[in-house]
Amino acid sequence: MPYRLLTSLAVRLEGEIYLFDAGEGTQLGLKKARLGVRGLRLIGVSHLHADHCLGLPGILMLKAQMENPAPLTILGPPGIEEFVLQNQKIMEFFLNYPVRFIEWCEGSPELAYEDELVRILWNPLQHTRFCLGFRLEERERPGKFDPARAQAFRVPKGPLWGKLQRGESVTGETGAVITAQQVLGAPRRGRHVAYVVDTRPTKSIYRLSKDVDIAFIEGMFLPEDSHHAEAKGHMTVTDGARIARRAGANRAVLVHISPRYGVEELDSLEAAAKQQFSEATMGRELEIYVVPYAE
Amino acid sequence: MPYRLLTSLAVRLEGEIYLFDAGEGTQLGLKKARLGVRGLRLIGVSHLHADHCLGLPGILMLKAQMENPAPLTILGPPGIEEFVLQNQKIMEFFLNYPVRFIEWCEGSPELAYEDELVRILWNPLQHTRFCLGFRLEERERPGKFDPARAQAFRVPKGPLWGKLQRGESVTGETGAVITAQQVLGAPRRGRHVAYVVDTRPTKSIYRLSKDVDIAFIEGMFLPEDSHHAEAKGHMTVTDGARIARRAGANRAVLVHISPRYGVEELDSLEAAAKQQFSEATMGRELEIYVVPYAE
Repeated sequence: MPYRLLTSLAVRLEGEIYLFDAGEGTQLGLKKARLGVRGLRLIGVSHLHADHCLGLPGILMLKAQMENPAPLTILGPPGIEEFVLQNQKIMEFFLNYPVRFIEWCEGSPELAYEDELVRILWNPLQHTRFCLGFRLEERERPGKFDPARAQAFRVPKGPLWGKLQRGESVTGETGAVITAQQVLGAPRRGRHVAYVVDTRPTKSIYRLSKDVDIAFIEGMFLPEDSHHAEAKGHMTVTDGARIARRAGANRAVLVHISPRYGVEELDSLEAAAKQQFSEATMGRELEIYVVPYAE
Repeated sequence: MPYRLLTSLAVRLEGEIYLFDAGEGTQLGLKKARLGVRGLRLIGVSHLHADHCLGLPGILMLKAQMENPAPLTILGPPGIEEFVLQNQKIMEFFLNYPVRFIEWCEGSPELAYEDELVRILWNPLQHTRFCLGFRLEERERPGKFDPARAQAFRVPKGPLWGKLQRGESVTGETGAVITAQQVLGAPRRGRHVAYVVDTRPTKSIYRLSKDVDIAFIEGMFLPEDSHHAEAKGHMTVTDGARIARRAGANRAVLVHISPRYGVEELDSLEAAAKQQFSEATMGRELEIYVVPYAE
């Protein structure tokens, strides 16, 4: 719609971008949000309906206009590779970087992907077509530095503390080698994000959203339009907000809003969601969510 | 780009829409221009590069959301049918109206299509990929009504004059049957529109643009960037404007502007074009051109 782009989530971490879903016009959203595609490392596609995948070829071509683009990984349902390759063949576009496809298949492990920054899990949902939900987990951070313990080990305050905080070992005033583990607390959990759209309420959503810092979750209809949600394999804002709360999500952003609702109806949708979960809000065009670390 | 949609031309005539090219986001342009897809009768696709065809599936699906949508004709290069059908197969979308494909092939007549309102001609251009230019010709209108002749035939002013103007026969005061031809001048030419993008200067552009009322023609680069035009199979504003003038076009709108030029450079592009043809302007986002009948 002129007033609302198709649903897509870009997670940016240390300059790298992990994108979830790319319908027609998502590349415009990336530009408007000043994210671009240079840092685009991975695209997770929920399913092969056009509003979730038709933007892929354009984004791939846009990335090919960069100098020395980094490799790209595409996660998605069976057929995602054929979709991209068929379009590449017919439209004859050239990609100057490697694209790796990871397709879900029967028996796929829950861990779909990992790199030095994140792990991504996936789980089938329940839609009119095979559809995947995703969970992105930032890797653990080193534990909290304990200055008292550093002093007890006779490591003087200064550059040596910095080394310990970065996980390195140092030599203290007594000449003994002090390891980071001796002065750091237990490793701290990274931030976790769920992305779940195009599904009826189903068990795997709980698994994907369990205790996440932020859940982007489908809230397509007002509760009074729940017959549409049921008929078309979707969720109301009530469904989405309730599941997020029950799964222990810290907050929920309800997305994949039906085009039947204009901008002026977002407040009613949000009010219905908040009845289930006070930390639920509606996703809005190009909004940025800064996710803090849990203390 | 956030400030400029991909190149596409919608010709509206008596509520029917003839669309030329549909890249990613063209359906958004149709909505922003309040044209919609209900009246969409035909799409002419110049070639199978993504910025000219990737918007097709979305537009087809949008039209399928209408009630009782009318049939659609798609004109295009060899492969256009495969492109649509492959995407339809993979993304499993259902179309509740007939789609007829007319693919250009070696030996195709110049007349690609005709209906009660228009005739559409096509001609291969000269690009890095096989590419078609189009010419849409509104059908002839009845000749000009001559009141003096109607009076001479003793047809009284009033409803009978209207009948004659619509091409019907009437009975005059003398009892004689007067036909429309007896009181109308020679049939008058309809309005003609050319759409020519993604090409080097070549003979067929002259043929497509000859004496048109308005030519939408490629002006992708400033003359000083002509090496890019040459290398990539395109035209500068100078090329486009000169060809339009030489072909006898009444006016030219230069389109398919390179993303290297921002909004602030449209004036320089237009100035360069006007050096060749005073009736040349640059195409601008969502602009509407009302094409008057030549007298």
